[in-house]
Amino acid sequence: VTGTLYGVGVGPGDPELMTVKAWRLISTAKTIAYLAANGGESTARSIAKHFIADDASEIIIDMPMRVERQPAQTAYDDGAARISARLERGEDIVMLCEGDPFFYGSFIHIYERLSSKYKVNVVPGVTSVNAAATETGSPLATRDGVIKILPATLGEDRLRDELMTCESVAIIKVGRHFEKIRKLLATLDLLPFATAIELATHAEQRIRAVSKINEPTMPYFTTILVNTNRRPT
Amino acid sequence: VTGTLYGVGVGPGDPELMTVKAWRLISTAKTIAYLAANGGESTARSIAKHFIADDASEIIIDMPMRVERQPAQTAYDDGAARISARLERGEDIVMLCEGDPFFYGSFIHIYERLSSKYKVNVVPGVTSVNAAATETGSPLATRDGVIKILPATLGEDRLRDELMTCESVAIIKVGRHFEKIRKLLATLDLLPFATAIELATHAEQRIRAVSKINEPTMPYFTTILVNTNRRPT
Repeated sequence: VTGTLYGVGVGPGDPELMTVKAWRLISTAKTIAYLAANGGESTARSIAKHFIADDASEIIIDMPMRVERQPAQTAYDDGAARISARLERGEDIVMLCEGDPFFYGSFIHIYERLSSKYKVNVVPGVTSVNAAATETGSPLATRDGVIKILPATLGEDRLRDELMTCESVAIIKVGRHFEKIRKLLATLDLLPFATAIELATHAEQRIRAVSKINEPTMPYFTTILVNTNRRPT
Repeated sequence: VTGTLYGVGVGPGDPELMTVKAWRLISTAKTIAYLAANGGESTARSIAKHFIADDASEIIIDMPMRVERQPAQTAYDDGAARISARLERGEDIVMLCEGDPFFYGSFIHIYERLSSKYKVNVVPGVTSVNAAATETGSPLATRDGVIKILPATLGEDRLRDELMTCESVAIIKVGRHFEKIRKLLATLDLLPFATAIELATHAEQRIRAVSKINEPTMPYFTTILVNTNRRPT
């Protein structure tokens, strides 16, 4: 009998915002897996670290963060092969995922490689977008309001079209795209309604009006919420 | 000193999908509050019931579910007044909210009435949209995919415009709007990509291809996921 792979969302950053199910699976796991970008610390692991058993075995998938896709694809292939080898031996594996595994998660690339061959259980988590709204004290939407999630990597034309027709937008993965986003929001007269949240619910969380930010880039884990129902700053 | 109001997301349905923070606040609460629609059972309370202390005091806000807004506004006014009276006496109150409080939550109406006068802490939760994606085994989005959340109460023109330009859409609060949505998806050739999830992660959960559903209405807590990246049914 082969093992089961669990893709477990650990939530946005505050360890207490992990679900009870995630906590149970992580704290009883014999083997955990996670991505580490460019050989650095894994964000998902750092969120879950207090719950991981001291004698748990760890599968680290080292992920080169580059614009080109090939090095990442190779890393996913390699990571999936290592997880697969353990599943074949009947071991269960808990893979840690920031936020929610099926909401822009790297876990999706592992899932695509393994879900047709093995039993894979996914545990949803609190997303950074929901956490960012809570931390700014502004609801994402109510009644018949529309919400859009727009990756900052999109081209300007698509971003403009979507921003022009929406009351509530979350622009995610802002990082080095900040300057492009700030200019676009200014052009559309949306700057007074835009708030940037870096690392929502992490110890390093920072919240600022986008109009007050001068640096050209921001951390990758930055979300900009644009909500025209909110009182302008 | 006045008390603190906690708006706590209990997640989509499975009690284990509540956050550790929600579980801690609910299990230690001396007073809880929640909405009950038309005098029926509260969904949020039924999710949290195993964690509520036997001697906890309960504030029930009875909510008439009608198309007209005035009865609901009166119920929110009344509920906010009752919560306010307890906060004035220095009591802390934990208000239970389905999913995430700031994601279309009724809690927003209480928050708007009380947040300028009292300390209000909001605890985000796993949304029914994230849970629905997990349960169908199809990621919401990856890389630079756009996600839109569209309430089924929107007019047909707006729904059509948003559906035509998006790879991943969650249509929420489907209920009595099902027939309108089904026809629109058929017109746009999106039926093969549409899945309906009733009561995600509840014991009564049901998942079906929209093309295979014949009844004219569905439960209020139904989400339709439309994802053109998915293999058609």
